[in-house]
Amino acid sequence: MDQVNKEELMKLVEKARPYSTNGKLIDYIPALRTENIDDLAISIYFLDGSFYYAGDYLKPFTLQSISKVIALAYVLIEHGEEQVFSKVGMEPTGDPFNSIAKLETNKPNKPLNPMINAGALAVTNLIIGKNLEDKWNRFASFVGKLTKSPISYNQTVSNSEFETAFLNRSLCYFLKQYGYVQGDIEDLLALYTRQCATEMNCKDLARVGAVFSNDGCDPNTGECYIPKNIARICKTFMVTCGMYNASGEFAIKVGIPAKSGVSGGIMGSVPGKCGIGIYGPSLNEIGNSIAGIKLLEMLCEKYDWSIF
Amino acid sequence: MDQVNKEELMKLVEKARPYSTNGKLIDYIPALRTENIDDLAISIYFLDGSFYYAGDYLKPFTLQSISKVIALAYVLIEHGEEQVFSKVGMEPTGDPFNSIAKLETNKPNKPLNPMINAGALAVTNLIIGKNLEDKWNRFASFVGKLTKSPISYNQTVSNSEFETAFLNRSLCYFLKQYGYVQGDIEDLLALYTRQCATEMNCKDLARVGAVFSNDGCDPNTGECYIPKNIARICKTFMVTCGMYNASGEFAIKVGIPAKSGVSGGIMGSVPGKCGIGIYGPSLNEIGNSIAGIKLLEMLCEKYDWSIF
Amino acid sequence: MDQVNKEELMKLVEKARPYSTNGKLIDYIPALRTENIDDLAISIYFLDGSFYYAGDYLKPFTLQSISKVIALAYVLIEHGEEQVFSKVGMEPTGDPFNSIAKLETNKPNKPLNPMINAGALAVTNLIIGKNLEDKWNRFASFVGKLTKSPISYNQTVSNSEFETAFLNRSLCYFLKQYGYVQGDIEDLLALYTRQCATEMNCKDLARVGAVFSNDGCDPNTGECYIPKNIARICKTFMVTCGMYNASGEFAIKVGIPAKSGVSGGIMGSVPGKCGIGIYGPSLNEIGNSIAGIKLLEMLCEKYDWSIF
Amino acid sequence: MDQVNKEELMKLVEKARPYSTNGKLIDYIPALRTENIDDLAISIYFLDGSFYYAGDYLKPFTLQSISKVIALAYVLIEHGEEQVFSKVGMEPTGDPFNSIAKLETNKPNKPLNPMINAGALAVTNLIIGKNLEDKWNRFASFVGKLTKSPISYNQTVSNSEFETAFLNRSLCYFLKQYGYVQGDIEDLLALYTRQCATEMNCKDLARVGAVFSNDGCDPNTGECYIPKNIARICKTFMVTCGMYNASGEFAIKVGIPAKSGVSGGIMGSVPGKCGIGIYGPSLNEIGNSIAGIKLLEMLCEKYDWSIF
Repeated sequence: MDQVNKEELMKLVEKARPYSTNGKLIDYIPALRTENIDDLAISIYFLDGSFYYAGDYLKPFTLQSISKVIALAYVLIEHGEEQVFSKVGMEPTGDPFNSIAKLETNKPNKPLNPMINAGALAVTNLIIGKNLEDKWNRFASFVGKLTKSPISYNQTVSNSEFETAFLNRSLCYFLKQYGYVQGDIEDLLALYTRQCATEMNCKDLARVGAVFSNDGCDPNTGECYIPKNIARICKTFMVTCGMYNASGEFAIKVGIPAKSGVSGGIMGSVPGKCGIGIYGPSLNEIGNSIAGIKLLEMLCEKYDWSIF
Repeated sequence: MDQVNKEELMKLVEKARPYSTNGKLIDYIPALRTENIDDLAISIYFLDGSFYYAGDYLKPFTLQSISKVIALAYVLIEHGEEQVFSKVGMEPTGDPFNSIAKLETNKPNKPLNPMINAGALAVTNLIIGKNLEDKWNRFASFVGKLTKSPISYNQTVSNSEFETAFLNRSLCYFLKQYGYVQGDIEDLLALYTRQCATEMNCKDLARVGAVFSNDGCDPNTGECYIPKNIARICKTFMVTCGMYNASGEFAIKVGIPAKSGVSGGIMGSVPGKCGIGIYGPSLNEIGNSIAGIKLLEMLCEKYDWSIF
Repeated sequence: MDQVNKEELMKLVEKARPYSTNGKLIDYIPALRTENIDDLAISIYFLDGSFYYAGDYLKPFTLQSISKVIALAYVLIEHGEEQVFSKVGMEPTGDPFNSIAKLETNKPNKPLNPMINAGALAVTNLIIGKNLEDKWNRFASFVGKLTKSPISYNQTVSNSEFETAFLNRSLCYFLKQYGYVQGDIEDLLALYTRQCATEMNCKDLARVGAVFSNDGCDPNTGECYIPKNIARICKTFMVTCGMYNASGEFAIKVGIPAKSGVSGGIMGSVPGKCGIGIYGPSLNEIGNSIAGIKLLEMLCEKYDWSIF
Repeated sequence: MDQVNKEELMKLVEKARPYSTNGKLIDYIPALRTENIDDLAISIYFLDGSFYYAGDYLKPFTLQSISKVIALAYVLIEHGEEQVFSKVGMEPTGDPFNSIAKLETNKPNKPLNPMINAGALAVTNLIIGKNLEDKWNRFASFVGKLTKSPISYNQTVSNSEFETAFLNRSLCYFLKQYGYVQGDIEDLLALYTRQCATEMNCKDLARVGAVFSNDGCDPNTGECYIPKNIARICKTFMVTCGMYNASGEFAIKVGIPAKSGVSGGIMGSVPGKCGIGIYGPSLNEIGNSIAGIKLLEMLCEKYDWSIF
């Protein structure tokens, strides 16, 4: 079978790690600035239950934009496609994830997809609950089912992002003007920054990726948490816009559904094969883990995991 | 001398009034929706002190964007050119007044001029004061010197605009991200919506226009409230971007410094000659008083007031 | 096996055909205006050599934008990835296929991907040859290997497009300014409009799709015309930007690599399974065959062909 | 009277000249690259016939964009406002003079004003004549009336610009697509590059500026070549968009109608007072003569020539 072995995985990690020095740590989220630049860890969770890892795969980090895929799955389950896609589109953009220009110029001012910030904010706005705590608890409980472990968020990171999220506030009010977001914006941002600060390690992240790979079902128990169609939608967005405005290049060079976050995390999902969790905080200019991408490139080439 | 007489002025008003039926009342500020669509009034205040009017020239209305010129004059006096123009540029844009796209695409993300909303918000943010009341009082006191009458704002209009100002909030947070606006955004919007809701009639407005025409000095008393250089800067912005994204056409067809507001007001300022106050709430697509522009066109052609 | 049968295929075609009435024939290429609006035909070519069809699958039509994928494969073979991707990028855009704005605003002015016109023109510019005839003959000969039948172009269509291709000329000169296109623009357009006017029927098109599905090799003979890696690159672009600025939605709803043309053709390529050729000239607003997309949607759902 | 004297003028020139070192010669028109970077000359032509100069005011240079104002006057005379403004708008843009993005995004795709390249090409396209020679001769004859001296163009510069005018070709074909330009594009560019290469010295240029200042009439003979209304339109465009995307700043700091060219020329026109011709080939980033602007700033402040 086309599974990896631990030694090979460690070798690949060591080959990819030096690329970290070409990137840099995120600077606009103060609480994320203290990371070790050449950290690099990976976990792979195969659908037969086998599990591989290399590096400090138990070190927790915040999901950041990776949470956008999980939130999308959650609100699709809660509301259905029709309602969700009345608030957010399906098209890749070619613009940076925090861009606002196209929201204005592209009528009817709907965020183009749920992987850019504007779209993700519209998605998080659909999370139901009596109040912030309740909304967070529901979302966290959903995530916990995927990881099979209790979920919390990093309060320092969440607070830090909440306080400096001026561009996200700008996006929210723009969306509110056009009805793609409702309710109190500070409440929405409080929930969104918690969601982004959801903490996980590579092991958990690989498990979530495996659930998506397995059409929404737990590879061990067979229990299904995400309808197949929704899992597929999520994987599709991961391909067309999961790696920010380098998604096209990633699809060409790696060719698997993946979603990155500015914390340096990447969740990969090879349909029918495995889930992958990566952590490498050194980012390229686009905001993707520079060594993480290199690692995925080598891995997917070696095992021929491209879906194309 | 090239002064008007009352009969001629009334004739021009009656020739211009029918154009109102081609426009419409503003719809996005709920409190402004109740206006009478074919209202049309004008006052002209000559620098020799003579005063002409036609129509209901004492009916009060809110200044809306006209207040941007007065606020600009005020903060230029308080802070000087260097500081003010570090927060706002000098170039016309060709975009609608509430547009955000160019803020993002035009580096370094500085609002292009103080007549579009983004720039006007950056200007209002420079008004000094201990708190909202104090800031408003200082501004109102400045305006009152120009009109020689006490100034208040329309609270209903101000509240209405405050509650629905999502696009302005979006602009503010964007500007805050890039340091062109500081402090609490809700406070800024509270001040800005008061400023926009400053109430005046055509007579007062003509007087303010006359002060600008007279290089910042009161035509009656000779007392100077605005340094000549600042009055000139304001008149220049009125020409290059005073009539929204129809400023170019207005300069061609009318050729005098003027600033309009979505309430239907227009303040004109013919350098060295007179100030003009107009009120006609029926707007064209751009947001300018449709009959007001027609009236200015006929007036300036008849008396050859173009500065070009 | 998950193969179709002819009756089912005919039923699906009849279910999809009525959607044609919601679309319209292309209007900007005069020579394409005479098509029959509810034409709908499909061919499917499985990798085991079995072949299915419904509708008038032998009616020839011009490839239009479908030719972009084949030209890309050809120049990648001739020049290698490095050179080709120095002239054209890998990212989806969210803009219409003929858009020029992002070429200017997105530094360094490189066309974002080879499926939009700007990128396709840069690709065609890389076709080698002594002159127009020679270049065309080389390209046609390559296409002929894929279809196993001689290839010609529709001269009426080609001439018609050549004469009215003002936007493409505009794109070309812009690209020439920045060095992404070299040489004579009229020559380039002559070649490009021939390439777009390459004529084929659904049967041929399904065969080409099958070669891509089979990693570049002929499903019958096993002979390989396109290196596996290049076939994969082409399929990736088909997913991320093959269906114009509805590629994201198509990926969500259908989930297979596909490329459409404004003639109403669609080439599908299900990796490891089959190639698909469709012809239905009634287009939606984006420029895709409206019944063709419906047909693919039903087909891929029924046989679970999504790659995600 | 507020006229200058020669000594003062020479002093101002020497004060302004050092600013040249902060700019650079144009690099994209090969034939213009050989200029002497600290050349600075000025002529002022008063409406009473008096004439002042400093520097090498008889050195010929090409008009470049300055020709846009003269061509506009010419086609307005030939065709009238209605026809001309059906092909080109009246609004300043805030974009660089050679930008194409807004042509696409700003419906109905009409060039925003005749001072940016797109608009100037639409204007030149309206020059009537049997062929290129005839069109050029008519235009040159019109210019010659204004300067009272025969007009020719610099063939080296014209050829150089013609050969490298890829962006202008791009603009032309875009405009042709939308009907704002008709006929053969190479012919249009041949005429346009001749027009831009029209050669003049500061003395001639000041004379042309004086005709505009004098409402279209020759200050010496009183003969009128441009109707007053058209002269006024031209001066208005000079204020709102004559100095590229620094027109707003120039209006604030200098305050007179002026048009610059990338050769380093500036034509000023103080209504009712004088015409000004300046030559200083060292340009700032925007494309305006850096010492020329400084000179105008000092001059207009000293003599209080601002129209505002």
